[in-house]
Amino acid sequence: MRNVRVELDHAPYDIRIGRALLDNVAAIVEQLPQQRVAIVSNETVAPLYLQPLQVLFEAAGVQVHTIVLPDGERFKTWETLNLIFDGLLSARCERKTTLIALGGGVIGDMTGFAAAVYQRGVPFIQIPTTLLAQVDSSVGGKTAINHPLGKNMIGAFYQPRLVLADLATLDTLPAREFSAGMAEVIKYGLIDDLAFFEWLEAHIDAVMSRDVDALGYVVERCCQNKARIVAADERENGQRALLNLGHTFGHAIEAGLGYGAWLHGEAVAAGMVLAALASRELGQINDAELARIKALIAKAGLPVESPALGAERYLDLMAQDKKVDAGRIKFILLEKLGQSYIGELQTETIRAALKAGCAA
Amino acid sequence: MRNVRVELDHAPYDIRIGRALLDNVAAIVEQLPQQRVAIVSNETVAPLYLQPLQVLFEAAGVQVHTIVLPDGERFKTWETLNLIFDGLLSARCERKTTLIALGGGVIGDMTGFAAAVYQRGVPFIQIPTTLLAQVDSSVGGKTAINHPLGKNMIGAFYQPRLVLADLATLDTLPAREFSAGMAEVIKYGLIDDLAFFEWLEAHIDAVMSRDVDALGYVVERCCQNKARIVAADERENGQRALLNLGHTFGHAIEAGLGYGAWLHGEAVAAGMVLAALASRELGQINDAELARIKALIAKAGLPVESPALGAERYLDLMAQDKKVDAGRIKFILLEKLGQSYIGELQTETIRAALKAGCAA
Repeated sequence: MRNVRVELDHAPYDIRIGRALLDNVAAIVEQLPQQRVAIVSNETVAPLYLQPLQVLFEAAGVQVHTIVLPDGERFKTWETLNLIFDGLLSARCERKTTLIALGGGVIGDMTGFAAAVYQRGVPFIQIPTTLLAQVDSSVGGKTAINHPLGKNMIGAFYQPRLVLADLATLDTLPAREFSAGMAEVIKYGLIDDLAFFEWLEAHIDAVMSRDVDALGYVVERCCQNKARIVAADERENGQRALLNLGHTFGHAIEAGLGYGAWLHGEAVAAGMVLAALASRELGQINDAELARIKALIAKAGLPVESPALGAERYLDLMAQDKKVDAGRIKFILLEKLGQSYIGELQTETIRAALKAGCAA
Repeated sequence: MRNVRVELDHAPYDIRIGRALLDNVAAIVEQLPQQRVAIVSNETVAPLYLQPLQVLFEAAGVQVHTIVLPDGERFKTWETLNLIFDGLLSARCERKTTLIALGGGVIGDMTGFAAAVYQRGVPFIQIPTTLLAQVDSSVGGKTAINHPLGKNMIGAFYQPRLVLADLATLDTLPAREFSAGMAEVIKYGLIDDLAFFEWLEAHIDAVMSRDVDALGYVVERCCQNKARIVAADERENGQRALLNLGHTFGHAIEAGLGYGAWLHGEAVAAGMVLAALASRELGQINDAELARIKALIAKAGLPVESPALGAERYLDLMAQDKKVDAGRIKFILLEKLGQSYIGELQTETIRAALKAGCAA
């Protein structure tokens, strides 16, 4: 088993990475302030893992409540969040009842937000069951729901007490979802880890065939990278924004197509290509480096071309992004291959990148 | 002008208390990270204070967005909270835009919660315009909305950067609302400040006639008491729970009658009498002390008798309270007059207190 320690000021916690971690709940039980948990999952994941987990908890003397939500980004809304509150209140869950998120990024974000605000905060444990959630959503404490006028607009910074990344849960992940997770994996290489980018270029076939050693390494390396960045900047005042590489463009793609049309990771992949195109416009990477980025993204089964929403629509959508400060949009750009920075773009540079990166 | 400094680990802030503080916005403007604010108020308070405030801000070069909500505890819901998010997102408010709560406890609680979760947290300033909000809701960082299954069940701990308690805003407060605020005032005397309880007994007429010196002293003393208690226990793990004197019974009264039938302060007043009755049952205060408590509450224009919901209904409602731990209900009780503690009650003691304290 691999372990990544996330060192945050007030609440350090462990991410445990390995196969079949869910066969034993002792690591979870020792974190519980009360022998009572509420497990939040969705209609896809629950049939696979919820019942065995419930049986293990009950055998350990832990009272279990279950809340099963509909599956999908389009349900990352207040209405669905309220189903969690309804379940917790109907079962009279208390301040010491631990919420456990069993599912992908949407379940993690919603359950984490519910934990942050239910009775002004209850303990929270994450069991991410998708690659995306294991490498990204479960590290760093960002929780949120969407609003019709913007993605992740309502949320909280809230840290889990423990994260269990069971690689066995990735066995059942559909190919499209696995690829979506790879977008965030590749992102870590581009942010500030050229060695990892090159490792991915060399091992992409093993990773895509879900070789267990390759996967364990990928999840560990990504979590280490994210943990390091988050620990240095928990509240996103500075360098943590680098984690948004591809996200300003990507959120515009998701909002422009309607949430759920593209998976988050697919939008981030195309968004990273747009960020790379803008960086090439600025002369910071060359054509060969751009080609390497696009090749790795394509080999991961991800789109390298963005949808043709029109430049005006992109600009309008991006102006609504959280990363706007005093009306100026911030972008994460490549200083060179494997090194990113927070910058701004002239409108003409954005237009040039969109022209080169969007479907005709 | 009086000033109370609230010393919290991460975010100390000032409560300024005086007349006509709203005639000058300089104290607010110097706290703004961006020359942009969104003022949240309600349909009752906005016509009195919103426009002059907006004019002063704009004269100081601050861009102002206004969001006016319906007035009343029954609107302390997700639906109303969402009107704040709609307004902030439509105006494209950013992470550095400061939210200002202009109104009573409901506006303060909802605006504070909106500030805690909008884009995962934006700056927040309170301008409480009721006695209740000035002495209680604006100190301590508790924010929340109600859920159909329980009051204040969804919320966050979130501190303002500044609180301006303008005593002039109390001139327009209806008598019933002023009395409701007095419930929390009397509460501070009972918690651990016998000298203040006795000062109130001696000066209740001046306070009820809203003598400005008496009012300034009352607000300052209550804020000092609350600030001291909160600073020692920001997350309500221990002694902060003393602030809930009268609230376990009071919340049951509010929920049992339907939110809004009784004002929060009225329910707390009757709840404090029930707590005092239970304390007398335990032999901790005597009949004369009980009579002094009831006399002061009555002179403040507050109910000393609780509604006849029936003991079973009270017990059921209290079992849903946030202050429940492992199924046991915690009560704040009087060890003696002017000194309280966190305890539990036998069901028979609760029944006896309800029998003595409820309308026939």
